[in-house]
Amino acid sequence: MELIELMQSQWTCRYYKTDPVSDDVLERVLDAARWAPQGGNRQPVRFVVVRDAEKKRQMKEWYLNPWNAYVAAARQGGIHIGSETEVKIPKMLSDADYFANHMDEVPVWLVVCAELAEIHPTDLDLGRPPVVYGASIYPAVQNVLLKARDEGLGTALTTLLCHYEPQVKAMLNIPDGIATCAVVTVGWPTKAFPKRLNRNPLSTMTFNESYGTPLYS
Amino acid sequence: MELIELMQSQWTCRYYKTDPVSDDVLERVLDAARWAPQGGNRQPVRFVVVRDAEKKRQMKEWYLNPWNAYVAAARQGGIHIGSETEVKIPKMLSDADYFANHMDEVPVWLVVCAELAEIHPTDLDLGRPPVVYGASIYPAVQNVLLKARDEGLGTALTTLLCHYEPQVKAMLNIPDGIATCAVVTVGWPTKAFPKRLNRNPLSTMTFNESYGTPLYS
Repeated sequence: MELIELMQSQWTCRYYKTDPVSDDVLERVLDAARWAPQGGNRQPVRFVVVRDAEKKRQMKEWYLNPWNAYVAAARQGGIHIGSETEVKIPKMLSDADYFANHMDEVPVWLVVCAELAEIHPTDLDLGRPPVVYGASIYPAVQNVLLKARDEGLGTALTTLLCHYEPQVKAMLNIPDGIATCAVVTVGWPTKAFPKRLNRNPLSTMTFNESYGTPLYS
Repeated sequence: MELIELMQSQWTCRYYKTDPVSDDVLERVLDAARWAPQGGNRQPVRFVVVRDAEKKRQMKEWYLNPWNAYVAAARQGGIHIGSETEVKIPKMLSDADYFANHMDEVPVWLVVCAELAEIHPTDLDLGRPPVVYGASIYPAVQNVLLKARDEGLGTALTTLLCHYEPQVKAMLNIPDGIATCAVVTVGWPTKAFPKRLNRNPLSTMTFNESYGTPLYS
């Protein structure tokens, strides 16, 4: 399969089989994270793999609080969702709502962590929130998502559980100085991968020499 | 080529040919960004493609200020660089110093931008700096780096130019509300891709149910 086909079909999987994910396939998936770029080759990313049913159930309970608030706001139009070309927002929301209420049944959760002292952000004094911390974290996460897709595994990347970082850290014995950056659920999808995701055209996001001047028509 | 081989050899390219990169191959590389995950399918990432020699020269001049300070600190041991298994830090620094002083000769620069209003971070009130903004930005950047590797193109991802965000925004007409998140240089490498990057073993970064308990030996 071509790389671009992998990327075009690497979607947020919301329906999973309960079949286990073996240590072997999971090792190949996690190994992909090692090769991603990050500042100074300091490699700040860590993963806590959670399969324990009670831990997943507790994290789902926490997750549902911000999730239910998000759904309520989205249904009232208070949150912008979707691409320019997308027409099926209610379907996306109901799928995501199903996921939120059943995420503890997904066999593997990866709690993505980062050693903040190993990241040297370059955008702390710009009068806007910093984004550069993520440059040493999320490339590794994307490698994991792509390698999982390559193995036929579905994934969902969510950051909503960050609202419960203190509770998650206490439960998983995550020390001071470590941030929880995302959760990635991993399992075998019930449905075939989509052929192609719904995205805005390239012309809306690539500019030539000056912001707003399209490079491609 | 297997996906994992692409990932293992997707390194920071510091020596480039001056041969141009065509619009066609660049379009395939940038298109990869579209498919990456981001919150709510709001797709906040934008790219300003810069080939103009004078713009690149000016950005290099800005870049060299924080770069030279970084090299001085690193040579004095004030900055931790490298993996546990790495022994060639001086080589890495001299390669990176060559790159910094010649980066304007790389045919294409991608200035990676993000519409901050389209990102809803979940970690703003945790008593630590936010990292989640990057979850909607850097997966797309990683797709670009991997697709460039797939096309035989070298890339270097750097965030150092964020120190000059106001100047870069003025030069490229980047409006308020848009952050500059990174620069990716793109060109044909002078050398063969490495077979495999230098990284710490998986056992140091993957834990089983509890932080610090290795999942793999």
